[in-house]
Amino acid sequence: MIYHFLVPLSAQIGALNVFRYITFRSIYALLTALVITIVLGPMMMRWLQKIKCGQYIQDEVGELHKCKAGTPTMGGLLLGFGVLVSTLLWADLTNIYVWLTMLVFAGFGLVGFVDDYTKIRGKQNKGISPKAKLLGQLLVAGTAVGLLIMQPAYSTELAVPFFKNFTPDLGWMYLPFALLVMIGASNGVNLTDGLDGLAIGPSITSATCYAFFIYIAGHIGMANYLNVPHVPGVGEVTVFCGALVGAGLGFLWYNAYPAQLFMGDVGSLSIGGVLGFIAVLCKQELLLIIVGGVFVFETISVIMQVSYFKVSGGKRIFRMAPLHHHFEHKGVPESKIVIRFWVISILMALMALSTLKIR
Amino acid sequence: MIYHFLVPLSAQIGALNVFRYITFRSIYALLTALVITIVLGPMMMRWLQKIKCGQYIQDEVGELHKCKAGTPTMGGLLLGFGVLVSTLLWADLTNIYVWLTMLVFAGFGLVGFVDDYTKIRGKQNKGISPKAKLLGQLLVAGTAVGLLIMQPAYSTELAVPFFKNFTPDLGWMYLPFALLVMIGASNGVNLTDGLDGLAIGPSITSATCYAFFIYIAGHIGMANYLNVPHVPGVGEVTVFCGALVGAGLGFLWYNAYPAQLFMGDVGSLSIGGVLGFIAVLCKQELLLIIVGGVFVFETISVIMQVSYFKVSGGKRIFRMAPLHHHFEHKGVPESKIVIRFWVISILMALMALSTLKIR
Repeated sequence: MIYHFLVPLSAQIGALNVFRYITFRSIYALLTALVITIVLGPMMMRWLQKIKCGQYIQDEVGELHKCKAGTPTMGGLLLGFGVLVSTLLWADLTNIYVWLTMLVFAGFGLVGFVDDYTKIRGKQNKGISPKAKLLGQLLVAGTAVGLLIMQPAYSTELAVPFFKNFTPDLGWMYLPFALLVMIGASNGVNLTDGLDGLAIGPSITSATCYAFFIYIAGHIGMANYLNVPHVPGVGEVTVFCGALVGAGLGFLWYNAYPAQLFMGDVGSLSIGGVLGFIAVLCKQELLLIIVGGVFVFETISVIMQVSYFKVSGGKRIFRMAPLHHHFEHKGVPESKIVIRFWVISILMALMALSTLKIR
Repeated sequence: MIYHFLVPLSAQIGALNVFRYITFRSIYALLTALVITIVLGPMMMRWLQKIKCGQYIQDEVGELHKCKAGTPTMGGLLLGFGVLVSTLLWADLTNIYVWLTMLVFAGFGLVGFVDDYTKIRGKQNKGISPKAKLLGQLLVAGTAVGLLIMQPAYSTELAVPFFKNFTPDLGWMYLPFALLVMIGASNGVNLTDGLDGLAIGPSITSATCYAFFIYIAGHIGMANYLNVPHVPGVGEVTVFCGALVGAGLGFLWYNAYPAQLFMGDVGSLSIGGVLGFIAVLCKQELLLIIVGGVFVFETISVIMQVSYFKVSGGKRIFRMAPLHHHFEHKGVPESKIVIRFWVISILMALMALSTLKIR
């Protein structure tokens, strides 16, 4: 809204011109979201404590995580509030892509909220059925991608990293492909959310990385220079990415080891879903495998563990899945596992960014 | 050296053209330094343990930090090795600014090394005298800045953020000014180095931030567009910044709470000194106050505490200075203080970057 108030005035007051720039507004969206989440954090935590939104801990990890019981969860509400308010303040609200992004974020958040709420009411670590969850995710993602494909500026061609001339047009098959990306990302972040700060760190690096990708995709000069697909208008979503990074850092303020607040499914599903959607928006879906590598490893570790357990008739590859529990059981301190996963996530994001030059 | 081997071949093999780009080489300098430090870390720690380079802890912080005694220090050697090898591999070695930067880094590192070594031999937390330390710093910084001012491309005008037309020429007064920046930064990082990961985090964000500044300063189009001083040739130092960020992340791998390795003065003095020098190189010296805000706060907290103690005849402002000990005494867990200082440092770096648009 700041954008809509100040930019018309910039004809009179030259200094206000700076509010036209996506880069400038993205940085201030970040700072605004950061301040909102840090300032409102204590209030939110008191309120969550009062309505008894404590975390219930799975029996199997109970021994190591006993002390986490009772820590308020649904911190994703705080993060989501920061993201949405800051985006509404700083983005150009006539941009359809900004609204679609907020729709996905809020929609996946709602699915997560229902799940969290069910857990709390039932006083156990078991929310809505996996089927109901998937249905909710499909509904939100399907609506958003459907509306996206209807935009004339958006093409259903797939960009393959390293192969600049191979851009198969997926046509209507693009819809299931995009849904897979979004729901996969959403569940990946959800699985990763098992240690203090573990999910939010790679979420912050992924959002930062995609801030660059979406800015470039929306900038015709840069997109052509770097030989990546140009999607007119998506650049404005950089402001949303900025807000997400800022709210993520603000949430980390309270989620840092030892955590005073967990994000809950309302946080992890919304972050994952929206990262998937932004990857779809800027047509860098395949790179999400690298950028969100930590989420991918965590997901694969679960799939491997479960499959091997079934095939071998009861044997395990990891001491426990997802992967972070494996290291925990091996005696690596929680805070160290988390920071190392962050370092890996920065490494993956940089490798992904460097592919911009190799095309 | 990779640069010198591959770029001549790029006339024949087009794909090698990518090695011409500073951005591409900076990212790979980062990744190389990261891998070097992580891979060599365990070997280095065993060696430091063997030659008894354990940390001695000041008596006053003893109660809280007892468990830190015996952790190997001089991890700055590991970091420095990673930075220098990676820079030698990826940078254009015909560039004078790259060599001056490495000179400052190695020189300040040497001063720190002598200090660390004296502590270890004397088996107490007391190194060389403050006077000897300052003399060493002055010598290194003076040589580098002297050589820098002699470069015809380098001007002694001061760039003041927000005032694009106010660029006073400091003339020979530029030398003491630059020395103040470098030695101040060096001692600031040194003071901050008191909790696991506390100094390396803001060092990484500052180096990242200055990677942008120095790249822009070296790029005539961008420098003119953003209205910042253009210093022809300094862009190549971006590769060094990349290596510093990478080695910093690799060092953090072992320095993350609970730390297995400390950087020692060899680490903190070299990082601080070189950050100051890079700020001088790209003529964004004043912005270092914002970018390195965490180091500034820490330094000011010590000055305030000591001054107030003298003036008031024994009273204290903080429970203990530098600032991080104050929060520790108030009962905030170490890992949480550290991560929060990181968040603040990211915030400061972003504010500094946003000034690029407000000029």
